[in-house]
Amino acid sequence: MQSTQIDQRVSLAVSTVVFALRPHPRTGHDTLWLPLVRRIREPYEGAWALPGGPLESDEDLAASARNTLERTTGLTTNYLEQLYSFGEVDRSPADRVVSIVYWALVRPDEAARAVDGENVEWFVADEVPELAFDHNRIVEYALGRLRAKITYSPIAHAFLNPEFTLAELREVHEAVLRKPLDPANFRRQVLASNTVVPTGTCVTGTSHRPPALYRFDPASTTTRERP
Amino acid sequence: MQSTQIDQRVSLAVSTVVFALRPHPRTGHDTLWLPLVRRIREPYEGAWALPGGPLESDEDLAASARNTLERTTGLTTNYLEQLYSFGEVDRSPADRVVSIVYWALVRPDEAARAVDGENVEWFVADEVPELAFDHNRIVEYALGRLRAKITYSPIAHAFLNPEFTLAELREVHEAVLRKPLDPANFRRQVLASNTVVPTGTCVTGTSHRPPALYRFDPASTTTRERP
Repeated sequence: MQSTQIDQRVSLAVSTVVFALRPHPRTGHDTLWLPLVRRIREPYEGAWALPGGPLESDEDLAASARNTLERTTGLTTNYLEQLYSFGEVDRSPADRVVSIVYWALVRPDEAARAVDGENVEWFVADEVPELAFDHNRIVEYALGRLRAKITYSPIAHAFLNPEFTLAELREVHEAVLRKPLDPANFRRQVLASNTVVPTGTCVTGTSHRPPALYRFDPASTTTRERP
Repeated sequence: MQSTQIDQRVSLAVSTVVFALRPHPRTGHDTLWLPLVRRIREPYEGAWALPGGPLESDEDLAASARNTLERTTGLTTNYLEQLYSFGEVDRSPADRVVSIVYWALVRPDEAARAVDGENVEWFVADEVPELAFDHNRIVEYALGRLRAKITYSPIAHAFLNPEFTLAELREVHEAVLRKPLDPANFRRQVLASNTVVPTGTCVTGTSHRPPALYRFDPASTTTRERP
């Protein structure tokens, strides 16, 4: 662990914005939620903040994000990406802290395994309270990035189980973008993008014309988001 | 300035990958160049590295990038954006350093004002020598980001004077992407994107049908690249 700050040095924290889809408490429609952790010390004691902690000297950045996320919320994720580094001089009232922020997308089963302890709570992402530090600004930025990126990059599958129907994939887009999408157009666009492949199986049990299952094709994306 | 590292603490540096277009020394075609700074102390004494330096405790991140860039190379830029933070545990041989890396695009007149001192030299970006630390990897990542981003975001104008012809804009794309583009297609796509507006004037002097001048329309882009 880093020792206490004693001088003008800059200390480094790693935090993570985790998104999962759950029904909205009023509308019942799937919407974005995120877990926040209640601060148990100053500054901002008692306020909600993003899960995170100081970068340990023997940890890589993504490992730090994963470790503090699991330690504080019990969450693990397959989709973790660096979002941005926030370093304004006055973003922390006492010392100078630069936060390297990651964002994660989690599936329902991953979210269900998360701890819901007294100091961890899930919030509707667009309705978070006033947070510690500049964390409201970070959440807003992460939401903007997610909503931009889902329009040009195949990331929606990260909210779903490995096998999904095209209707489920569309519902993820609709929940993230907060608007209905035309099913036929969506289907055509997804199939034309070659980012999903049919598993050759169908949803079992429910219907005499069961919908086909697909999985994400990792080989389809050449976007270089990380080094 | 940060004081000397004495313990297990993590220190923070800010570096910048600066791209400008100049003719390639062999082919004569415009190509990407970047300035490097020769290290005058260990580790990697004598090796070339990206311009940068430790984050000062009273400086914002982008201000640090601008200040070290100007101090080491004399360069100023209108296009400066955060690229990525590199923080592998073993990326520096002695201490633990996390580098927050910015990238900048500069115009010919900005590049011409740069210092070409004994410890600063410009290199063809795809032909840099073995650099200090993980800076080869950072340059490669920045090149990939630039080449990806120029295909979906109006950034090419940052290499040009405020008023430019569509042929000049196409030549920037060709130089960055290292391939010829069809002039009629390019013209159609750029005009359809509504990212440039005609200034109402033409190039003067040279031709009886002088090409029209355009400028970038900042209001056209809604891409949220920074908070």
